[in-house]
Amino acid sequence: MTRWPLPEPMALALDEAMQAARAGEVPVGAVVVCDGEIVARAANSPRRSHDPTAHAEIRALRLAASALGRERLDGCELWVTLEPCAMCAGAIAHARIARLYYAATDPKGGAVEHGPRLFEQATTLHRPEIYTGMGEAEAAELLRAFFKQRR
Amino acid sequence: MTRWPLPEPMALALDEAMQAARAGEVPVGAVVVCDGEIVARAANSPRRSHDPTAHAEIRALRLAASALGRERLDGCELWVTLEPCAMCAGAIAHARIARLYYAATDPKGGAVEHGPRLFEQATTLHRPEIYTGMGEAEAAELLRAFFKQRR
Repeated sequence: MTRWPLPEPMALALDEAMQAARAGEVPVGAVVVCDGEIVARAANSPRRSHDPTAHAEIRALRLAASALGRERLDGCELWVTLEPCAMCAGAIAHARIARLYYAATDPKGGAVEHGPRLFEQATTLHRPEIYTGMGEAEAAELLRAFFKQRR
Repeated sequence: MTRWPLPEPMALALDEAMQAARAGEVPVGAVVVCDGEIVARAANSPRRSHDPTAHAEIRALRLAASALGRERLDGCELWVTLEPCAMCAGAIAHARIARLYYAATDPKGGAVEHGPRLFEQATTLHRPEIYTGMGEAEAAELLRAFFKQRR
């Protein structure tokens, strides 16, 4: 049996998530792709960096915008291992990300298909195309193993 | 006639907002107070810093957490000149801000008393005490003047 390969950006995001877990952080990773090039990758790191905003998505968006020297990432893609929270979904809208890909869903903290469903709000600034599920089992297993170990 | 003075943190937040306007940024400012001390103040700066997340609130929260060397700002206050957006309201919840004070409301982009009303969502991680209106006229006038000049 051959498992269908993950798209490269999601494989890299999962690699970032694994690095987060090894550093004692909730395992989430994110990658920004612009014009087919990977311009940023980041792991979740609020504990290490003493920064409540240092989710993988926020870090990857900041790195990408800095690398490209512009405030907005029109036309770019964000790949992330977990459904974004309200903070990150808001940042994705501010950054004008064109396509959002996420692996596992997050019924507790997610704000895309759960809770406030931010991109469905009439007041949302911007609504990316959204693709889910690729890498879902891998991303969810990383989170399960991390929280099991912590209990 | 004597106008009731603004609380010092809001006066400082308005000062940050004025500095933002002078730099060509949407005039919003924020201040973090912990144990009665001002630990961070910041102006909105996404254009200058090429950072879609560089709202005044996010910058002030990051600076405060970095100054205190911890991920969360339990017991601290955030003072901001405009109703926070979804990104910033999410960050306020992640930071566990105890009390949120904001001046002007934002029917278009606000996510506290408008749009997704994040802190009223069942899935919100944390719900600060919220106080509004102090400095409302001053904050709204800064925004009006800024957008009038840009048109």
